[in-house]
Amino acid sequence: MQSIVKYKEQISEFIDSISLSGTPKELYEPISYILSLGGKQIRPVLTLMAADVFGIDPKKAIHAATAIELFHNFSLMHDDIMDDAPLRRGHQTVHEKWNTNTAILSGDAMLILAYQYFENYESDTFRDLAKLFSKTAIEVCEGQQWDICFENRNDVSIPEYIQMIKFKTAVLVGAALKMGAIVAGSSQKNAEDIYDFGINLGIAFQLQDDYLDAFGDAATFGKQVGGDILENKKTFLYLKAVMNANESQREELVNYFSSTEQNAEEKVTRVKELFMETGSANDSKNLIEEYTIKALAILDQMDIAEDKKQQLRTFSHELMDRRV
Amino acid sequence: MQSIVKYKEQISEFIDSISLSGTPKELYEPISYILSLGGKQIRPVLTLMAADVFGIDPKKAIHAATAIELFHNFSLMHDDIMDDAPLRRGHQTVHEKWNTNTAILSGDAMLILAYQYFENYESDTFRDLAKLFSKTAIEVCEGQQWDICFENRNDVSIPEYIQMIKFKTAVLVGAALKMGAIVAGSSQKNAEDIYDFGINLGIAFQLQDDYLDAFGDAATFGKQVGGDILENKKTFLYLKAVMNANESQREELVNYFSSTEQNAEEKVTRVKELFMETGSANDSKNLIEEYTIKALAILDQMDIAEDKKQQLRTFSHELMDRRV
Repeated sequence: MQSIVKYKEQISEFIDSISLSGTPKELYEPISYILSLGGKQIRPVLTLMAADVFGIDPKKAIHAATAIELFHNFSLMHDDIMDDAPLRRGHQTVHEKWNTNTAILSGDAMLILAYQYFENYESDTFRDLAKLFSKTAIEVCEGQQWDICFENRNDVSIPEYIQMIKFKTAVLVGAALKMGAIVAGSSQKNAEDIYDFGINLGIAFQLQDDYLDAFGDAATFGKQVGGDILENKKTFLYLKAVMNANESQREELVNYFSSTEQNAEEKVTRVKELFMETGSANDSKNLIEEYTIKALAILDQMDIAEDKKQQLRTFSHELMDRRV
Repeated sequence: MQSIVKYKEQISEFIDSISLSGTPKELYEPISYILSLGGKQIRPVLTLMAADVFGIDPKKAIHAATAIELFHNFSLMHDDIMDDAPLRRGHQTVHEKWNTNTAILSGDAMLILAYQYFENYESDTFRDLAKLFSKTAIEVCEGQQWDICFENRNDVSIPEYIQMIKFKTAVLVGAALKMGAIVAGSSQKNAEDIYDFGINLGIAFQLQDDYLDAFGDAATFGKQVGGDILENKKTFLYLKAVMNANESQREELVNYFSSTEQNAEEKVTRVKELFMETGSANDSKNLIEEYTIKALAILDQMDIAEDKKQQLRTFSHELMDRRV
């Protein structure tokens, strides 16, 4: 088995080699630009790793991995328009650097280019990959729409929130892994298991992302700590805090989350205290643990060699420790 | 062979039967809405007709035809955002009725749904259809981007303009026909010929659309006559007029097309006179004729029965006479 660093090198090298010199340049330059910003490339790494786990040269999965990374960047380009985000990976977003129309159209082209990468496989594999891709892509759209809907709702339940992050984030993690299994021609059961492993790991990852946004170390987390709180994002921490709170705590929370006019430092400090006092911070840690354990339990019973399981375990731990 | 009316009924019936009751409804309702506005459905009719021409029950091509119609409506939904268009088929555009974010996301979902319709075919056909679809879809994006680029350029050549309308409009006409051939398992040569027939017919159709926008009869054309002139759209009529014009005519044309502040009726009347005086109106009619003849010549030498050629000829004439 290869190391995670090696997979990353393979992905980066391949993506850097994609020719996006087509015309009109106004369509292709924003695609080159967003891909050049890099990012963690966790999803395509998972595709290569899964191919390796199921016994083929991971290079054979490079086109599927690239499709996944193109799709991920398409969704970022369109989401950034919707969220009116000025920055992505520390640089101007496409709609800021160019304009909204360019970000719409280049995003559309990126989604189509993603499908074209499956053309490197023979018919049956092509069909299985494209089918999984379409199903996943629709779910990601649904997840994004749920996320938008939730902003204007005060009655979002925990299961609804979990379903939203499952669609918005986890299904692409599951699909990235399953694509490696498809290219490798694994058994149906193994392909489904690796998908379920990815779903659970993806949910754990997203819950942890929300947790670290409030309680992480600014130096290692790489984003502004407290950003979600300042944007009044109703993450698990908030939803569970409101649920656990007594009347005065609930009033305080709802009050903080109904305006962006308060003193930022005071708001972040007090809301974090409320997340601790109500137990939602602890509940969040427990739920992250629960989904991680579930992912690893699926892995344990899979019909693959022990050293391959060990690599997936190592990756899971490194991912959850934010070391990849 | 079936009549065009019959194909239309089949398409409408099938598209009406598509279940778009999924959740979140904010994602699916705009898709139902734009499909419910109808439109001429020329492209899916062509897919069914081609399947019929190449000897299979046209119903077998209904899923490919639906993918084409979904793609066409996806491109309208996103183009309407980019053009800031308030109306589509006489009704509010999606970004007006909902908002821009909804139109972006529902459009994305519609593009993905289009791909899913190919899943109704076995692997080799699926692959051929999806491959043609992706190539065509990228070209449509490129055509749209060229169209946007041309707005800010004063040196667009006639070949560049033809290339733009080929990509923005004609390739989807060609692809719609070729998909019927693919589903029917026609010879490679016939599939390529029907595609080329569609390309030429599509270019003729778009050039005529531009011509009728200036010289058509408001009652039968269905759009505001002179709309392109009032929007300063640099169609073939304008580009050729500037090319043919003497110095004073050129000055007048460039002047009219550099502002939207003039008296509308006077502007339309005078610009149409200039299109006549410079000969660009006549050149346009000749070029439409040229592309139509080229399309029909491709048809003539195809290896299909005479009655099938006749149906495609009849369709071509009805399309160019705006009776379909």
